[in-house]
Amino acid sequence: MSEPGLVRGPSVRAVPEGDNRERMICADCGYVLYDNPKIVVGSVPRWGERLLLCRRAIHPRHGYWTLPAGYLELNESTSAGAEREAWEAARAKIAIEGLLAIYDIPRISQVQLIYRARLVDDAVAAGPESLEVGLFGWEDIPWDDLAFPSVRWALHHEQEARQSGDLTTRSAPPLDLAAQLRE
Amino acid sequence: MSEPGLVRGPSVRAVPEGDNRERMICADCGYVLYDNPKIVVGSVPRWGERLLLCRRAIHPRHGYWTLPAGYLELNESTSAGAEREAWEAARAKIAIEGLLAIYDIPRISQVQLIYRARLVDDAVAAGPESLEVGLFGWEDIPWDDLAFPSVRWALHHEQEARQSGDLTTRSAPPLDLAAQLRE
Repeated sequence: MSEPGLVRGPSVRAVPEGDNRERMICADCGYVLYDNPKIVVGSVPRWGERLLLCRRAIHPRHGYWTLPAGYLELNESTSAGAEREAWEAARAKIAIEGLLAIYDIPRISQVQLIYRARLVDDAVAAGPESLEVGLFGWEDIPWDDLAFPSVRWALHHEQEARQSGDLTTRSAPPLDLAAQLRE
Repeated sequence: MSEPGLVRGPSVRAVPEGDNRERMICADCGYVLYDNPKIVVGSVPRWGERLLLCRRAIHPRHGYWTLPAGYLELNESTSAGAEREAWEAARAKIAIEGLLAIYDIPRISQVQLIYRARLVDDAVAAGPESLEVGLFGWEDIPWDDLAFPSVRWALHHEQEARQSGDLTTRSAPPLDLAAQLRE
């Protein structure tokens, strides 16, 4: 193995034989990296009228509020991943109810799958990636200190779904807008 | 670069420093592969009462019938990916209507996102990955020659959604069953 300081990994851009797109190839060993979009799984956990948020103890957006969410692991279903993230971030046990939203963020090759969920009980506590966690009524949500735009989208989509009773899966950007943007 | 016959890539299993799971590491160059679940995007394209199917010209399941679907590419939204796959498999132009289903297949670290869609016109033709394509009424679907279980799930989910008017996103395994299996 090379010295740690010399690790390069796939760093040459070229079209592999039999392929039709450029991929990253390792100049040391010839390995072709078939890189893929990443899946983020999460939830909007509800306890009565209140919603669970976590203040981030990690970068990026350290100190800002987010929903429990993170990368799906290998050999994990999306709902199991959302449950795991709720436990890791907030020591929360959740019951998944349905897929609230799918958020496409192609700029960073990310697809976010956010579930509607209810807390099984209100015994929540900061996990290793959170500074603190809290259950917030709608008016008390720290709107100015949310970590990411998709946190705001998910909170509004959850509120809208619950108030209207329309439980179809939301998307961002909305599908009709996405189609227009491609035309 | 090594000789082509000597390419090994990440082939040693170990926990990298600062991580908490085993990852595959390249013994030649030290590169750590953070492998992730893969996203398959597809659609059930409808023309009136008929549904579009494609007979596979590629392995696996060469010669069997499938829906237009495939791996999401980097920097691509899921709906754009579903449109691309419909074009590549069947030269079909589709209008995405909503997310029909999410199928978790953790055994192979795959998440399938299948959209409801209508064909913009019925001018379809086999693309390079298809032997032939066809528009099938429900009774004429080649049920015994479908390529994958998820093709059958998606066809049934589409039919059920259309007949009931319930357009909420389906899942497989169903969410309540998935939760039971983990308990």
